[in-house]
Amino acid sequence: MTDKKIIIFDTTLRDGDQASGFHMLKEEKIELAKQLAKLGVDVIEAGFPASSPGDYDSVNEIARIVGTPDGPVICALSRAIDSDIEKAAMAIEPAYKKRIHTFIATSDIHIEDKFGKDKYWIIERTVNAVKKAKSYVEDVEFSCEDFGRSDSDYIIDVVCEAIKAGARTINLPDTVGWLTPSESYEKVKYIIEKVREIGLNAIFSVHNHNDFGMATATTIEAIRAGAGQVEVTINGIGERAGNTSLEEVIAIIKTRKLGECNIKTRYIGETSRLLSKITGIYPQPNKAIVGKNAFSHEAGIHQDGVIKGRETYETMDPKDFGIESVLTFGPRSGRNALREKYKQFGIVLDEKEFEKVVERFKRLADYKKEIDDSDLILAIKNQENIPKYYRLIGYSPVHVNGNFVSIVELEINGKREKIYESGDGQIDSAIKGVKKAIVKQELELTDFNSKSIGKGSEAIGETRIIVIKNGWEVKGYAKNSDVVRSAIEAFIDAANKIKYLEDYFENHQNLRFCTHT
Amino acid sequence: MTDKKIIIFDTTLRDGDQASGFHMLKEEKIELAKQLAKLGVDVIEAGFPASSPGDYDSVNEIARIVGTPDGPVICALSRAIDSDIEKAAMAIEPAYKKRIHTFIATSDIHIEDKFGKDKYWIIERTVNAVKKAKSYVEDVEFSCEDFGRSDSDYIIDVVCEAIKAGARTINLPDTVGWLTPSESYEKVKYIIEKVREIGLNAIFSVHNHNDFGMATATTIEAIRAGAGQVEVTINGIGERAGNTSLEEVIAIIKTRKLGECNIKTRYIGETSRLLSKITGIYPQPNKAIVGKNAFSHEAGIHQDGVIKGRETYETMDPKDFGIESVLTFGPRSGRNALREKYKQFGIVLDEKEFEKVVERFKRLADYKKEIDDSDLILAIKNQENIPKYYRLIGYSPVHVNGNFVSIVELEINGKREKIYESGDGQIDSAIKGVKKAIVKQELELTDFNSKSIGKGSEAIGETRIIVIKNGWEVKGYAKNSDVVRSAIEAFIDAANKIKYLEDYFENHQNLRFCTHT
Repeated sequence: MTDKKIIIFDTTLRDGDQASGFHMLKEEKIELAKQLAKLGVDVIEAGFPASSPGDYDSVNEIARIVGTPDGPVICALSRAIDSDIEKAAMAIEPAYKKRIHTFIATSDIHIEDKFGKDKYWIIERTVNAVKKAKSYVEDVEFSCEDFGRSDSDYIIDVVCEAIKAGARTINLPDTVGWLTPSESYEKVKYIIEKVREIGLNAIFSVHNHNDFGMATATTIEAIRAGAGQVEVTINGIGERAGNTSLEEVIAIIKTRKLGECNIKTRYIGETSRLLSKITGIYPQPNKAIVGKNAFSHEAGIHQDGVIKGRETYETMDPKDFGIESVLTFGPRSGRNALREKYKQFGIVLDEKEFEKVVERFKRLADYKKEIDDSDLILAIKNQENIPKYYRLIGYSPVHVNGNFVSIVELEINGKREKIYESGDGQIDSAIKGVKKAIVKQELELTDFNSKSIGKGSEAIGETRIIVIKNGWEVKGYAKNSDVVRSAIEAFIDAANKIKYLEDYFENHQNLRFCTHT
Repeated sequence: MTDKKIIIFDTTLRDGDQASGFHMLKEEKIELAKQLAKLGVDVIEAGFPASSPGDYDSVNEIARIVGTPDGPVICALSRAIDSDIEKAAMAIEPAYKKRIHTFIATSDIHIEDKFGKDKYWIIERTVNAVKKAKSYVEDVEFSCEDFGRSDSDYIIDVVCEAIKAGARTINLPDTVGWLTPSESYEKVKYIIEKVREIGLNAIFSVHNHNDFGMATATTIEAIRAGAGQVEVTINGIGERAGNTSLEEVIAIIKTRKLGECNIKTRYIGETSRLLSKITGIYPQPNKAIVGKNAFSHEAGIHQDGVIKGRETYETMDPKDFGIESVLTFGPRSGRNALREKYKQFGIVLDEKEFEKVVERFKRLADYKKEIDDSDLILAIKNQENIPKYYRLIGYSPVHVNGNFVSIVELEINGKREKIYESGDGQIDSAIKGVKKAIVKQELELTDFNSKSIGKGSEAIGETRIIVIKNGWEVKGYAKNSDVVRSAIEAFIDAANKIKYLEDYFENHQNLRFCTHT
C-alpha cells in the first residue's frame, strides 16, 4: 500500500493551543500557520471560533492570509450546535478551500455523564449538525468524540447517518488515549469495513491522544487498518499528554513506506523550533525526531557503529528532517569515537599512548557531569584540572544614568587588574568587562543560559555557557547565590579552558591550525 | 491473562545514564537505586562495569547497598567478551540476588558493518559468553542486539543455543526503535512459539527504543505476544529518543489489566521527580503520566466533563501515581469550570451577570499568554488591567563586605520610598527590600524562575514567579535586559495583583474568608 495517499491534518493551532501553557496570540498563530503551509500540511485546523472572540479572529485571519488557492484547507472546529457552526462558517469564509469540523461524543460515559441524554438524541444532533455545516461548505468533517471507548456498532449507526447527511471525512478520535495499538487496528478496521459493506463511503480519519504514550502507535495501526487522514500536532502538543506528533508519524510513513503524503520533511526541524520559540517550551531531549538527543550518540558501542556505518544505529538520516546528528562524549564513549575526535584536532597517538589516554579520559568523564574539548587535552597531559589563568576577585555593579557600569576585579596570571565596562544590563556589562581584560582571547559566546529556580528569592543562580573558538567547543559553568556572579564565573571558567587549549596547541605548532568541523 | 506476572527490569542507571546530558555521579546513582527498590522494580540494571572505572564502582556500591535479600536483583551489562563478563561478575558480587546480562548483535547490518564477521561466529561467541557468565551466577540474561532488524529464523538459532548454554532470560531488544506495534507482536510471538516448539524455554523480555515514538506501544504488544519481562526507564530516558517509559507501561498494565507486577504505583511521581532533580532535566509538559500537563484540563468541554464525572476525560486516577490533577484556565475554559472557580472564592453570580463575566473573562484570556486568579476579578469588575499600586523607580546594588545591599526605590500609591536591605545575592536582597516596603502584604513566594537565555551575554532576562496568599494564586512576570531588574519587576507585578484581590475582598466582606483549596 505504498502509493496510498495519507492526508495530514494539523491541529497544533486548535488542540495544541488548548493545552495549559501553550496558548498562542493571534500574530503567533498566523506565523505558525504560514510555516505549516510551507511544511505542506493538507489541512490546518486553525481554531474553535465559538470558544472565544480571540479564537474567532485568529481563524478568520488565517483563512484570509494562509487560505490561498494553492494553500492548505482551512478548517474550524464546532460542537454540534447551530450557533457554533455559524461562527465556524463565518470565520473560515475568506479561505479558498474550507472545512467545518463538527463533533459530538458517542461513548456511554460521555452521553450519560456529560449530556444526560440517550443515543437517539446524539444521532439527531449529528444529522442536524452535518446538514447545517453542509449548508455553508462542501467539505464537512464529523467526529465521534471518545470513539476509543464507544460501542463500535453504535458508532457505525452514527457514522452512516453523518455520511448520509453529507460528511466527507469521518474522524474517529481516541479522545482519552484509551486504545492499545492492536485495539486501534481492530476497531478502525471493523468500522471502515462495515460502513463500506452498507454501501457508504468517506475518508476515515484518526485523532489520537497520548495519555498512555501511544498516540503515534495507535495512529500508525489505524493507517494500516485503512485510515486515510491523520490528525497530528507539531511536537505532539495538546491537552494533557498531548496529541499524535506530526514528526513521528511522518518519519514512520516515510521510513517504513506506509503511504504517500505531501509533507516536505526538510522543514520539520524548522517548524518544531518555531513552535518552541513561540511557546517558550522545548521538547524533552528524549523526544523522538525533534528532541535534542534524538540523533545524538554517546555510548561507545553506538558511536563505533555510526562511524562504521550510519545505519547501524540510525534508521533515518536526520538531515532529511532538517536536523543535525551529533556524537557527544561521556564515560561510556568508545575508543573509535575518541580516536576520530583526536584526529579532528590533528592529534594522532600511537596505540600504547592512546590506550593510556582513553583510560584517563574515562576516569575524568566518570567524575564529571559534562565534558568538553578541554577534557581531551587534560587526558593527554594526564592532568585533572584546568589551571586558573583567570580568577574573579570581585565585581561591583554601578548605576550611571540608568545604565550599568560593572567594575570587575580579576586576577590574570597572578596579577590583579580592575576593568570598568558598560553594557545592556548587569551581566552584559560585567562579561564585556572580562572580555576586555582578556582581549586576546576573542571569545565567541554561542549559548548563554543563566537561571535561578527555586521556591523563593534566595534561589541559587546557575549559569551554563558554551564558547567556541578555532573550532574548539568548551562549556562554562558556575553556581552562586548571586546570579550575576554565577554568570561572570561561568564565563571565566570557559575562558580558562580556551586558554588551556590555546597553550597546548601553541606548544604543538603542527596541530594548531587544525579545526574540527 | 490478567494474572500473568510481568517482571519489571529498570535500566535507568544503565541505558538512561548513557544518554547525552543524563550522566549521573555515583552518589546520585545510589540514591536513585534506593528509590527504584522502594518503587518495587524486580531487577535494577545498575550499569556496564567494563565501560569505565566509575561505572564499575557504582555497580559495586549499588550491589552492596541495595542488593539486600529482600531487595531487587542487581544486574550488570557486559558485551559477549570474557573480560567484560569477569568485570560484571566482580562488580555485582556483593548482591544477594545477581544477574549478568550479556549481549551480541544479530542483525546483518550489525554483523557485517560493525563486526565484519559471519553468523556462525556470532553463535560461537554467544555460547561462550553465556557459559562464562553462568560460571559466576545462576541468573544469566542474553540479548540479541538489534533484534528488530534481525532475521527471525536466525534469532531462533541463536536463542536456542543461548538457552542450552544456560541463559534464563532471553531479551529481544528493538535497539533502533524500528518495529511497528503489529510487527513487534508478530515477531515476538513467532520466536517464542518456535523456541517452545523445539522444547526449550526461558523468560522472554523486550527492550525497546523510542526513535519513532513507539517504544511503549511495541512493548505493550510484546506483552500480548507472550513477553514476561519488560526493560524500561524512568521518564523514558535513554540513548537518542530514549527507552520505553516505566510509568507508561505500568499505567497501561494496571489500567488495561494486562498482567500483574510488583510496582507500587503511588511512588511513580516521586521517582520521576527524583530523577529530574538529579539530572536537572524535566519531562516535557505533554509527557504521558509524569508531564506537568498529563492530568491538567483547560478546555471548557474537558473541564465540564471532569467536573461532572472524572472518567469522561481521565481514564486513570492521577493520585494512584502520586500525581495531582489540576484545572487550569484559558480562553477556551468553559462556563461550568468558571462557575466552580468563582464558587471556590465564595462568589455566586446570577445567570445574566455570569454570562457577561464569562464573555469578559474569555476576552481577557484571549489577549494574554497566561492568566491567574486576579483575572477572575478583572472580569467581574469589567477592568482590563491591574492598577499599579506599586511601581519600581529604580534600584542599585551595593557591595558591602562581600555581601549585597540593594537600594530599591518604589512608588507606593503615588508616594516615593527608598528601602535598603541586605540578602543572599542581589535578587534576594532587592526582593527582601520590596517585601519590607509593602510589609502588610506578607507574600509567600512559591515558585521563582528567572533566566537569561540567548546567544550572548546581552540575552534578555525574564522572570516568572508564583505568589500565593489566602488561597489565591497569582503569577508575576517581567522581561528586561537586566535580569535582576526583571526579577524585581516580576515580584512587584505579583504584589500588585495580590493587592487588587485584597481590595476586592475587603470591599466584599462576606467573601473575604473564603479560600480555594
